[in-house]
Amino acid sequence: MEFGELLQTRRSVHQYSDETIDSETLESIFEAATLAPSGYNLQPWEFLVLREGDGKAALREVAYDQAHVTEADTAVVVLGHTDPMAHAEEVFDDWLAKEYLPNEDVRDGLLENVAGMGEMPESERRIWTTRSTSLAAMTLMYAAWDHGIGSCPMEGFDPEALAETFELPEAYEPVMLVTLGYPAEGASDIENERKGRRPVEEVVHYGSVEADGSTTLSIPSPGDD
Amino acid sequence: MEFGELLQTRRSVHQYSDETIDSETLESIFEAATLAPSGYNLQPWEFLVLREGDGKAALREVAYDQAHVTEADTAVVVLGHTDPMAHAEEVFDDWLAKEYLPNEDVRDGLLENVAGMGEMPESERRIWTTRSTSLAAMTLMYAAWDHGIGSCPMEGFDPEALAETFELPEAYEPVMLVTLGYPAEGASDIENERKGRRPVEEVVHYGSVEADGSTTLSIPSPGDD
Repeated sequence: MEFGELLQTRRSVHQYSDETIDSETLESIFEAATLAPSGYNLQPWEFLVLREGDGKAALREVAYDQAHVTEADTAVVVLGHTDPMAHAEEVFDDWLAKEYLPNEDVRDGLLENVAGMGEMPESERRIWTTRSTSLAAMTLMYAAWDHGIGSCPMEGFDPEALAETFELPEAYEPVMLVTLGYPAEGASDIENERKGRRPVEEVVHYGSVEADGSTTLSIPSPGDD
Repeated sequence: MEFGELLQTRRSVHQYSDETIDSETLESIFEAATLAPSGYNLQPWEFLVLREGDGKAALREVAYDQAHVTEADTAVVVLGHTDPMAHAEEVFDDWLAKEYLPNEDVRDGLLENVAGMGEMPESERRIWTTRSTSLAAMTLMYAAWDHGIGSCPMEGFDPEALAETFELPEAYEPVMLVTLGYPAEGASDIENERKGRRPVEEVVHYGSVEADGSTTLSIPSPGDD
């Protein structure tokens, strides 16, 4: 689909049909997500994918019983590794092999930088991984919709209960949940008028930010490109 | 552009041409960014946009003198408001008007939920705003590339120096920088082989996560759709 149309028609979908996502399509959506940019190309993202059986029910329990977690074909726990060094060596060896780096000394310097990032307090490393991993999550949702698959990003869950239920290794931050599935016929999120967005004039500041605190929502005109 | 092609051809661009982005195009890119999803539709994003003159030079100073900050036509400081309540009333009034909510009591309940989020410690509110705002930043970068405009997300900057230089209101988290501009003829980021990505088999876990620690980078085949 043209990106303009994808952008204008994507919605966060809460009502799903029973149609199954075939595994090849699902894999191509995750492959798309891996093409998101990340600082130093460190790619801290991982995806815990829950489909049939108990997994989705257990996730719904830690997500305040939100029904679309089990009604969607697939529920994804988007995870971020909190250690910047986790994949750094392989990444910089790849840069060296492709001549993005002139020599091993430069690679070693980059590794030192990233090792320094690894010494940030945990709160900063959580922000670091949330930033990169959210870029991949957004890409995942556009790629899904490009296949006609609706998605809903969710931040309403109990992170500790989730970590315990799924025995997440401690290094991972659960960044968000994303449900994936074909929208139900007549799904209200798609049929209803788009929820208002803060207008460009309010969110864009040229040169300096003056927070005036007022908010006016607007409805962008539908794209037809 | 078809999303598949957009995804496969987007790169983080460091070398820019002198071509100016016209203001209408720039505005449409920011309008696209406002269509990103966000939890409760709270849209905590703001964009400090620096174009000609001193702004970009000052930003480069707090971004460890990275040259593409001033070489790009436009440099954007992507900001996230750290108070979930900042726009909540307008958002829920909009939902009520569009019948997403049945009545004012439900709206008031949602406002209470969001007020509760506002009581999270600052570290959690920073993560909350980073998550939503990064979804908008990714959308911004795809929308830019859909116009042939390259972008580069950057997390290498001194957040305190940045806040001081641009007198940012305290409520804003500087989430990332994004440079925007038409790529230079023969820009190496576009001409060179794509940097390796962690393969789907490594980042996707069905049912449970077992971190084995090994990393193998792969090059996805170029899309031609």
